Amino acid sequence: METKYTIGIDYGTDSVRALIVNTQTGEEAGTSVFYYPRWKDGKYCDPARNQFRQHPLDYLEGLEKTIKNALKDVSGEVRRNVVAISVDTTGSTPVAVDKEGVPLALKTGFEENPNAMFILWKDHTAIMEAEEINRISRSWGGEDYTKYEGGVYSSEWFWAKILHVLRTDEEVRNAAFSWVEHCDWIPALLTGDTNPESMKRSRCAAGHKAMWHDDFAGLPSDDFLVKLDPLLSGLKERLFRDTHTCDIKVGDLSPEWAEKLGLSTEVAVGAGAFDAHLGAVGGEIEPYYLSKVMGTSTCDMLIAPQEEVGDNLVSGICGQVDGSILPGMVGLEAGQSAFGDIYAWFADVLMFPVQEIISTFNWLSDEQKERIVKETSDRMIEKLSEEASKVPVEESTIVALDWMNGRRTPDANQELKGAIMGLTLGSDAPRIFRALVEATAFGSKVINDRFISEGVRIDGIIALGGVAKKSPFVMQIVADVLNMPIKVARSEQTCALGSAMAASVVAGVHQDVSAAQKAMGSGFEKEYHPDPDRARIYVRLYEKYKRFGSFAETEAKSVRQ
Amino acid sequence: METKYTIGIDYGTDSVRALIVNTQTGEEAGTSVFYYPRWKDGKYCDPARNQFRQHPLDYLEGLEKTIKNALKDVSGEVRRNVVAISVDTTGSTPVAVDKEGVPLALKTGFEENPNAMFILWKDHTAIMEAEEINRISRSWGGEDYTKYEGGVYSSEWFWAKILHVLRTDEEVRNAAFSWVEHCDWIPALLTGDTNPESMKRSRCAAGHKAMWHDDFAGLPSDDFLVKLDPLLSGLKERLFRDTHTCDIKVGDLSPEWAEKLGLSTEVAVGAGAFDAHLGAVGGEIEPYYLSKVMGTSTCDMLIAPQEEVGDNLVSGICGQVDGSILPGMVGLEAGQSAFGDIYAWFADVLMFPVQEIISTFNWLSDEQKERIVKETSDRMIEKLSEEASKVPVEESTIVALDWMNGRRTPDANQELKGAIMGLTLGSDAPRIFRALVEATAFGSKVINDRFISEGVRIDGIIALGGVAKKSPFVMQIVADVLNMPIKVARSEQTCALGSAMAASVVAGVHQDVSAAQKAMGSGFEKEYHPDPDRARIYVRLYEKYKRFGSFAETEAKSVRQ
Repeated sequence: METKYTIGIDYGTDSVRALIVNTQTGEEAGTSVFYYPRWKDGKYCDPARNQFRQHPLDYLEGLEKTIKNALKDVSGEVRRNVVAISVDTTGSTPVAVDKEGVPLALKTGFEENPNAMFILWKDHTAIMEAEEINRISRSWGGEDYTKYEGGVYSSEWFWAKILHVLRTDEEVRNAAFSWVEHCDWIPALLTGDTNPESMKRSRCAAGHKAMWHDDFAGLPSDDFLVKLDPLLSGLKERLFRDTHTCDIKVGDLSPEWAEKLGLSTEVAVGAGAFDAHLGAVGGEIEPYYLSKVMGTSTCDMLIAPQEEVGDNLVSGICGQVDGSILPGMVGLEAGQSAFGDIYAWFADVLMFPVQEIISTFNWLSDEQKERIVKETSDRMIEKLSEEASKVPVEESTIVALDWMNGRRTPDANQELKGAIMGLTLGSDAPRIFRALVEATAFGSKVINDRFISEGVRIDGIIALGGVAKKSPFVMQIVADVLNMPIKVARSEQTCALGSAMAASVVAGVHQDVSAAQKAMGSGFEKEYHPDPDRARIYVRLYEKYKRFGSFAETEAKSVRQ
Repeated sequence: METKYTIGIDYGTDSVRALIVNTQTGEEAGTSVFYYPRWKDGKYCDPARNQFRQHPLDYLEGLEKTIKNALKDVSGEVRRNVVAISVDTTGSTPVAVDKEGVPLALKTGFEENPNAMFILWKDHTAIMEAEEINRISRSWGGEDYTKYEGGVYSSEWFWAKILHVLRTDEEVRNAAFSWVEHCDWIPALLTGDTNPESMKRSRCAAGHKAMWHDDFAGLPSDDFLVKLDPLLSGLKERLFRDTHTCDIKVGDLSPEWAEKLGLSTEVAVGAGAFDAHLGAVGGEIEPYYLSKVMGTSTCDMLIAPQEEVGDNLVSGICGQVDGSILPGMVGLEAGQSAFGDIYAWFADVLMFPVQEIISTFNWLSDEQKERIVKETSDRMIEKLSEEASKVPVEESTIVALDWMNGRRTPDANQELKGAIMGLTLGSDAPRIFRALVEATAFGSKVINDRFISEGVRIDGIIALGGVAKKSPFVMQIVADVLNMPIKVARSEQTCALGSAMAASVVAGVHQDVSAAQKAMGSGFEKEYHPDPDRARIYVRLYEKYKRFGSFAETEAKSVRQ
């Protein structure tokens, strides 16, 4: 029998990539990436208001181009033996659709309306709605539907976003028949049937972000939703009851897409999932290993057998959902709303003189000025890391809080803000940068502590994502602060690889996802070990971080009152 | 009778200037400035350890050159009618001297020893010694000699610095017969008699910095000093009992200096004083007006009639001394240990990419790179101010603490550090800069509040110094935060002008300093008025600043324990 191949599609924040993987060895047979053109131009976004929207055309064009390009250089044998495609996307990234499941932005009159587009995970326009969900969940007298989502609903999630758009855009409200997550829409589209009422919905999206749970017989009750806002009345019936893990087949490739891509209609399409979750799969997550996707933000996942988690509700995380990561295991999700974004923010602050002063020097040519901006910006974080790594940890007087984008876990609170203390006239940019890196590491440690205090042990750490791969400086500090070794997954594309693993189960090549991980996993490229001396110093600084955090949290409350 | 002229000499941190003033009109007849060459080269300093020393040769060369240059272009009539010279300097800036009053650094074997030089006001090497002085003052059972200095002795002051050097440098210890302040040494030098035992010592230096008071019959008792350290035993006898206000004559110009400068030996030399104090005089301080010298740090002075202050001890300021500013009035001094220095610090932080990245671009010429560094640095604060002034105050989420160089007033505490809170991913450099400026304004408001809560009213604010003259952006925020109008003195050289005013009294041209102020004062160039709307918003932000400050203070204590 010929070797079978699967395609993993990974929709990230800025780009989508396709990866063709040998299901026996995990070898990559082809790959391609596509940057969303409208997104790259900053369209439909308003960072000052934290509005981030993506046009469905960015996704559609990327889907076709990446798969076709990835297939371009493979042999006929490989192409013939592609047996399944699975998809992961960011989330919660919902969109309003019509009765046929067409995103409204693809329809006449809505092409340029941001509310008719996908509402990207990091969009925070629905802060007020999230607050209402939290208030009503605790006070309405019925079930607290946030209980499997850590007890705090976020503005980044499904219902808050839907409610915000329904309230603020009458045209979209009238035209929206239902709502779908990005990770549900793409698989449905590939099969040619996007009917929102029968569309196979992702367990991880629904369970972690839409307050779906078997104990609730699905989504929250209509009573609750109407209490939240009568605008939500009846919507539940046009959404879904059941959800599906990533090993479930949605259907076969439609004739239209088979032709478009040059594949057969026998190619299976798997149920979608979130990028971080399939990234954890691709990064060979195993029970009680915390799998950290470390990029602009972090997504931290842990799996444990249902019988061991039992009725234990882990308070303050982003959810615990049966099968959301690995079918058969409870998936627990946590995360930091800003991680690498904090380094990028500081780099941006430091770009001030380059962008505002040097750019006005008329004795430099435009070409020189552009090159200065570009090369300075490109080298900033690397240079800061280099200089910061020379600062002895004993010398650190600066302690920062990593809440520049609010706090996701534990106990989500978007109102929290970042802070820096311990500054002297000798606190230079590398010292401040180091404190910011330490702050993000302390934020990671708080998450570890929460899992442990809630009765979920952590046996090891697996790191994925851009920061994990590219910044030994950051990774060593995280290892020192956590006082645990950290393994870094070898694959450059763990999300797409995880999707390809899931697809191999969907196609029946492997019996389950664990088997696929064993066959297709690419192992670890590096392990960071904590330094005992630095770890000891960080224990003290961590206490300072926590005291500072308590103050800032009390302060944030006093401002709201 | 021909119009008389006086010369005011003003020794600042970086330079010394001489100003020749018409005693009838206040008109400037000549002026000259001299930058200390050794200081400019960074010699004898170690900023990382807060060690700042100045070589007596910097002062000597500057004295001769500035007076000669200022006299160069004046008419023979003006030169002939110079009747007195008075001097102000930074302080507390003491130096170890031999039996003849020669600073040790002028003697063979000590030329390059920083401990044999003047210990500049901002040197903080004596933090431990200041702590001991405070501890023993409170616990030894006798008089609390800090009581007229706000109850907290600072590492920036006379005894702490002397003790630190005596403890750490055996050679200087053995060679030091006595110690003199910079403002005492220069007038003595001009008269040709520097005998430390008979030298006329400045009331403001002694009263504010050396725990001198009439109630103590002079300096602290030998018992106290020996309790502090037996190394201090007997030193008091080689220092002084009496002190002198700025209207007192020290002597006449010595033949040697008269010849050097081309002046007569009939020129009177006045008792010296600190720059800020004579600056307040030059800036036309009047009772219950807070005169703020706003530069790298601030020095805030207020005068009030002795009969009104009475026995009221103002707690937490830098001292209250009869006649220290205006003879006949109690001079009260307070200050912020960093003001403009905080803006300069942030500008330095922002220079990181320019200095560390752009400077490595080999496709730019060395000349281009140097020019980029220089012009960027020159324009930074101006550009930050320009952009920050566009940020509406209502939008401010950031609150900072202005303690990057510790806190001088109220309740001096060098261990405190700066901080910034309320940061988001949208907090750009101008927004942070604005918060830093607001923090320095809040630091000013805390001082006002302390005077008022201690029973000393404030009728108005007079601003002097570089920030007051050059930064309308900062001054408007200070006016808004203080919710008081601020008058800015017109003279570009209020300290030197104040010295010239004092000299006119020393020479008998005017009856007292107030009369000299009336005749020679140059008035005010500008008045900032608070905006009621912004003032209201700042009331709320100020409360936040104070809560943040309480937390940081508690935190600083917990670190020391």
